Amino acid sequence: MNYERPQFFHVMQYAASADRDVVDMVSGNPDWEPPAALRDGLREYADAAPDEFQYPPSEGLRELREELAARRNVDADRIAVTNGPGEANYLAMAAALDRDAGSEVLLTDPVYPYYPGKAELLGGDATLVPTERDGSIDPERFQQVASEETGLILVNTPNNPTGAVYARETVAELEAIAEAVDATLVVDEVYDHFDFTGAFESALTLGSDRVIVTTGYSKSMAITGFRVGYAVLPERLVDAAKTRHMLVNVATSRPPQAAVLRALRETDADYYANVRAMLRDRVATFTDALDTADAEYTRPDGAFYVLARFDGFPGTMENAKRLIDEAGVAGMPGETFGSARDEWLRFALVTPRAEEAAERLADYFG
Amino acid sequence: MNYERPQFFHVMQYAASADRDVVDMVSGNPDWEPPAALRDGLREYADAAPDEFQYPPSEGLRELREELAARRNVDADRIAVTNGPGEANYLAMAAALDRDAGSEVLLTDPVYPYYPGKAELLGGDATLVPTERDGSIDPERFQQVASEETGLILVNTPNNPTGAVYARETVAELEAIAEAVDATLVVDEVYDHFDFTGAFESALTLGSDRVIVTTGYSKSMAITGFRVGYAVLPERLVDAAKTRHMLVNVATSRPPQAAVLRALRETDADYYANVRAMLRDRVATFTDALDTADAEYTRPDGAFYVLARFDGFPGTMENAKRLIDEAGVAGMPGETFGSARDEWLRFALVTPRAEEAAERLADYFG
Repeated sequence: MNYERPQFFHVMQYAASADRDVVDMVSGNPDWEPPAALRDGLREYADAAPDEFQYPPSEGLRELREELAARRNVDADRIAVTNGPGEANYLAMAAALDRDAGSEVLLTDPVYPYYPGKAELLGGDATLVPTERDGSIDPERFQQVASEETGLILVNTPNNPTGAVYARETVAELEAIAEAVDATLVVDEVYDHFDFTGAFESALTLGSDRVIVTTGYSKSMAITGFRVGYAVLPERLVDAAKTRHMLVNVATSRPPQAAVLRALRETDADYYANVRAMLRDRVATFTDALDTADAEYTRPDGAFYVLARFDGFPGTMENAKRLIDEAGVAGMPGETFGSARDEWLRFALVTPRAEEAAERLADYFG
Repeated sequence: MNYERPQFFHVMQYAASADRDVVDMVSGNPDWEPPAALRDGLREYADAAPDEFQYPPSEGLRELREELAARRNVDADRIAVTNGPGEANYLAMAAALDRDAGSEVLLTDPVYPYYPGKAELLGGDATLVPTERDGSIDPERFQQVASEETGLILVNTPNNPTGAVYARETVAELEAIAEAVDATLVVDEVYDHFDFTGAFESALTLGSDRVIVTTGYSKSMAITGFRVGYAVLPERLVDAAKTRHMLVNVATSRPPQAAVLRALRETDADYYANVRAMLRDRVATFTDALDTADAEYTRPDGAFYVLARFDGFPGTMENAKRLIDEAGVAGMPGETFGSARDEWLRFALVTPRAEEAAERLADYFG
């Protein structure tokens, strides 16, 4: 199996042991401040009575679930708070596959490598469906592959690594395909706060009992280490997901739940807007440099990654290392994300040195 | 499936909605203060730089694993830090069963209900092996049942619910049985800090590559809600466990890891000794009252539960509710823990009102 984190660590370690200064654009770790109220929430929790240090409800703190339910306009019973968005995806995929409605898992190509890894763990068979050159999805391609063997269709929007934001209508078509073959559609929306188009709509707006939405605060609150995510499941799947959560993890850690709850309540829209504006600036600076370097790229509509293709420099692990050694920039090889982008490299714009990296790339390839 | 937490919640909710005052002896939630350094650790973490809010290593913070390795005298590479002891057990059981060395899981009767639940989730077939009247294990009984179908033997010492502390020699015999049938022995030592005999020895002292030890800080630091546990695995199983941990949870939440690390470094032996002394007092008071009530019981050698049997009052859910209504004491029905103790009720001594509860039981049954 070939997961992002070992590959990620491999590239990171190579960069760290390089003889020169390297700008790290490998990890998906935000480099900016979390909401101030999140830190306040941790401080407040540190002084809580001992009973607040004990098991929260397995499905998540009641107040947190109610806050989420109100924001997402769903019944709180449909929400399971998880150990990060990663567990939310694991539970969602398991709920879909445990129905015995087919073991095939349709994923996009390029793909976030954890998805095929989780599919394999759960006894599913992953099939990668190519996306278009600009990262968008043509539902017709899914239609052609879907069959009664299909138990799960999983997509991620805004998308890592392509930066595509799928139209609501596209996701609705995927839902119809899932419905037609008695499968479940899981939509991972963990980058939902990083939509530069203003047009992103959650799959929850479809109001479908075929759809599970997963998300969390790793990216939007800049706390990938806190592990607070959640899944919104249709009623017919929610018990299975909560039972598995209980048997695997008992519950999600309580201090980060308490901190996220306070941050949710006290953080205004400016916090998220400011981060988006900063990322938009980084994208502009970085893609300007890619123009200078004569690279092909897609300007991301969401998330915080840029895929770039340099002529005669395919996205292999070997070339990723060469770029570290010769240009001082570390990116992820596109071959890590399936086969569709194996000519490309992915750069994560979560470093204040994005502009410097861009100049290095322009110098190296220009 | 029949898990402790839903049953636990069922009894708790019944007690909460009773018309009278009820002493809660249902949950396994410590009612005492965590180490002061744990609170300090959370406060310190709240002020950390943003990069400390990002993904820790999947296997656990390096400093925490090194601290654990030094304390347990094992190689740090063998340690996986988990989302509580619950995930440690899940990973350990999965590692044992994924070897395709048999799907039968030998458990004790009485049993902690999560174990058969996890076994079923992982495709294992649980067989309950009766313990002796005093809660101890006769390895001969395991010997008789073990076969090439056996993939896993799992025991818990100090034991919930019996309070038994198994002799090192007993665990060594179980290890030999596991070895003989090519199975893995998992020893859950989460109550290792609550040994009243002074004779408890970790299964790690066996130095066997057949043995996985699981434990954590839920009970010893009075933080069931923090979810910091760990498994020590033999080299041949550790990669499988870490891969599953990564695919299910990505990583264990970082704030509680940081808090536990500081508490480990700064908490002296007096903290644990004082808690043990308090529990020892509670046990004495409670069992004195059980004598007055003419109940049968086993005085726990470890953990913090007392199993009691009252003539003509078997450990059914119905009787647990009756005891709430008529005596104002809430305990867990013994039938929740398998069949061996279905005549018994389990009382958790994690309330400052244990003495009051004891008087109520003496009045009711005396």
